[in-house]
Amino acid sequence: MSLRLLLNLLGKLLLLEAGLLCLPLGISLLEGGPDAPAFVYTILILLAFGLPALMQRPASREVRAKEGLVAVSLAWVLLGAFGALPFLFSGVTPSYVDALFETVSGFTTTGASVLDAVEGLPRGILFWRSFTHWVGGMGVLILTLAVLPRLSGRGATLARAESPGPTFEKIAPRMRDTARLMYAVYTALSLLQLALLMLAGLPLFDAAIHTLGTAGTGGFSSRNQSVGAYNNPWAEGIITVFMLLFGMNFIVYFRLLRGEGFKAFKSEEVRAYWLLALCAMLLISWELLPRYGGFFNSFRHASFQVSSIMSTTGYSTADFALWPAFSHILLLGLMFVGACAGSTAGGIKVSRVLILGKAASREIGLAAAPRKLRLLRLDGRVQSEETVRGALVFFFLYMSFMALGTLAAAADGHDFVTSFSAAAASLSNIGPGLGLVGPSGNFNVFSPWVKVLLSLLMLAGRLEFIPLLTLFHRELWSKGH
Amino acid sequence: MSLRLLLNLLGKLLLLEAGLLCLPLGISLLEGGPDAPAFVYTILILLAFGLPALMQRPASREVRAKEGLVAVSLAWVLLGAFGALPFLFSGVTPSYVDALFETVSGFTTTGASVLDAVEGLPRGILFWRSFTHWVGGMGVLILTLAVLPRLSGRGATLARAESPGPTFEKIAPRMRDTARLMYAVYTALSLLQLALLMLAGLPLFDAAIHTLGTAGTGGFSSRNQSVGAYNNPWAEGIITVFMLLFGMNFIVYFRLLRGEGFKAFKSEEVRAYWLLALCAMLLISWELLPRYGGFFNSFRHASFQVSSIMSTTGYSTADFALWPAFSHILLLGLMFVGACAGSTAGGIKVSRVLILGKAASREIGLAAAPRKLRLLRLDGRVQSEETVRGALVFFFLYMSFMALGTLAAAADGHDFVTSFSAAAASLSNIGPGLGLVGPSGNFNVFSPWVKVLLSLLMLAGRLEFIPLLTLFHRELWSKGH
Repeated sequence: MSLRLLLNLLGKLLLLEAGLLCLPLGISLLEGGPDAPAFVYTILILLAFGLPALMQRPASREVRAKEGLVAVSLAWVLLGAFGALPFLFSGVTPSYVDALFETVSGFTTTGASVLDAVEGLPRGILFWRSFTHWVGGMGVLILTLAVLPRLSGRGATLARAESPGPTFEKIAPRMRDTARLMYAVYTALSLLQLALLMLAGLPLFDAAIHTLGTAGTGGFSSRNQSVGAYNNPWAEGIITVFMLLFGMNFIVYFRLLRGEGFKAFKSEEVRAYWLLALCAMLLISWELLPRYGGFFNSFRHASFQVSSIMSTTGYSTADFALWPAFSHILLLGLMFVGACAGSTAGGIKVSRVLILGKAASREIGLAAAPRKLRLLRLDGRVQSEETVRGALVFFFLYMSFMALGTLAAAADGHDFVTSFSAAAASLSNIGPGLGLVGPSGNFNVFSPWVKVLLSLLMLAGRLEFIPLLTLFHRELWSKGH
Repeated sequence: MSLRLLLNLLGKLLLLEAGLLCLPLGISLLEGGPDAPAFVYTILILLAFGLPALMQRPASREVRAKEGLVAVSLAWVLLGAFGALPFLFSGVTPSYVDALFETVSGFTTTGASVLDAVEGLPRGILFWRSFTHWVGGMGVLILTLAVLPRLSGRGATLARAESPGPTFEKIAPRMRDTARLMYAVYTALSLLQLALLMLAGLPLFDAAIHTLGTAGTGGFSSRNQSVGAYNNPWAEGIITVFMLLFGMNFIVYFRLLRGEGFKAFKSEEVRAYWLLALCAMLLISWELLPRYGGFFNSFRHASFQVSSIMSTTGYSTADFALWPAFSHILLLGLMFVGACAGSTAGGIKVSRVLILGKAASREIGLAAAPRKLRLLRLDGRVQSEETVRGALVFFFLYMSFMALGTLAAAADGHDFVTSFSAAAASLSNIGPGLGLVGPSGNFNVFSPWVKVLLSLLMLAGRLEFIPLLTLFHRELWSKGH
């Protein structure tokens, strides 16, 4: 890829971010908040970098696979780097590293925070913080594809780099149409949730913040005690359901729109997802019965927390770190699984777990009866050996990054539960973990370099490793490929 | 496989175990211990089951791959089931489950114990407990191959099911010769360690117990405080070195015997093993400096503990759970890696970790430059896709069993550190973990069903999953394969 094309693409991205920042700026001006200048300065800086970059006129607009990977990785890094400025300029975070952590946590839909308290913060800042979830949720690039003119004939390559899950399914013949359809569904579901939360009695601003956090499966809240602060069973129920809905493969919605009815749910992944969620909710409710006295209350908290963790959102209504061992360790296990591919969620993804399980079962079958041909199928379709190997390697990379993150956090002197869960919650884009980084703590306990490393873990998890790691592969930078 | 052949094979195994039990019986008689009847009864029971089984004359002696897997798995289960009887009969353990746990822990060279104190126990029992490590170390089947007449033309299949590591290398043209050579080296190294430990001042019995535990990379001790009880830097140093030596791929010793000199160490795995051990020792020594005041003492404890964990032995000279976070979490990470393939150690094995790392690196390379042919080499030899896939699936199975074990231990109400490290220490055949099952605790904190499950984890780790899991595969039991 020519440098010019890369600059041109990234220039567009910066201008897009400047555009996105107008929304929190507007809110800030309406509320007469003290944070308006922070947004104005950031927008000016974005224009100062974005406009000259956009001026670059590339000779060819063709984007090859590895160039797509570079563009995607850099796009996420730049969005975080510039998006952090309002936090710094408004004085909400004392240092740039903190601002960067908060913004990367936002765009990657993680929701891990370094802020001790959010209730006193200006509303423009709070909105921007949650808006990054919504923008990041569907992926920066799909947004670019949907809103900006068609970039290249090979958009599918970029989308594949971006889209979560082991395989990428085209919904519409043209990438841009797919992206637009996705955003239409995404927006419609978000508006529905917003309306329902207001019906449940939440003020407009609070309803908006929690809708943005739910849709992006992010988890930033405008309240120090997260959703638990409202003590509103209706709002909790609505958020529980919508977290699960945004964690479901979006293809289901397209199939529903096509009028397929119940057949739309005929997917091994979607069924395993709901089944796993239901089993976890019941098991935890059962263990929590003595604590909350009665099935309704224990199921209320259990279902909320299971949805929150599996969808990798990270909202909380209770400090689940204080729950009995089995419940909180089961939740820790669900952090790894995550939700469906093709959703806004993070984690390993249910479909990948299914492929891994089938690959293991096949290996055992090969030992029992070696001469039999064994194909690995998902939803009846044979999965290529590349897909299977990709899932297996993904799993290894996931666990290697877990080990790296845990060791780094431990080097700060923190206990195993804090270090391990901080790494897991960052890598799976969940947010709060256990121990010091549990629902009632925050990530400010870490030193700046650990915060930077955990931000990288969030990016690695969100981009599913390969695009980010490609940046460090020497062959990417050598000629002739 | 015909049932007759299976019975015949297992009958031989039971008689062999009866023979092995004569050694602790002799010690018990010499010491005038109260445990002699326990051994006599067990030997009689073994003869009662073994002799009729041996009488079965199979029509054919051919053993096919899947039949080998069944035989190997059942052999380990039976050895544990009958070997547990002396613990029960002598009253050392209150229940059969406890006796079974201790024996499986012994044969799988784990070294996890349910006994609160061992110092008052009869010497015959203590010797039998440690002798199971030595027997299990090199694998029951290799012993059978070496000592008993040749079983079948396909011994290599059995050896492959048994031998630890991703690939199996033939050293001598005939399996039986390989096995005999291995035992010769194993015995010679053991005798050398025994002599050195006695020179360092340990009494014969203590030197023997700790040699058996080191050679099998097991870790049972005759002292409540493990090796730390002696406070003998010479003995600690000898055990440190021999733990590492028994964790090295035994092929190195054959190559040394062949006169290859330094070229014998020319193996990526062996070099990575020593490098990893050295780096871990230095990092931990550095963190322990303020605690032990001076490099000699901190290196003494750090090197002992790193060797103990990496070789999956599990001896301790200090309660490393009390060390600073980074040190004990690094040790926890090393529990997963383990030592070399083709040694008596457990864990994932260094060569498999190398293959996994190379597989991940290849996947990134494929993303950066898709059209280039990429072969995965270890020591210059191309690894087949089956080997690579096998390593990747192994890793997934390992982590799945980890999750299962952790959840089971947590269901007993134990904290995350205890549950997680109990699962890791069982699966990697190490023994002590952290928390309640740390060097100063024991596995008696678990309920009987968790003890049974952890015993299964030890067997799964020792047999590297596939042979054990094949038992549960329906195609094994169907006809026509």
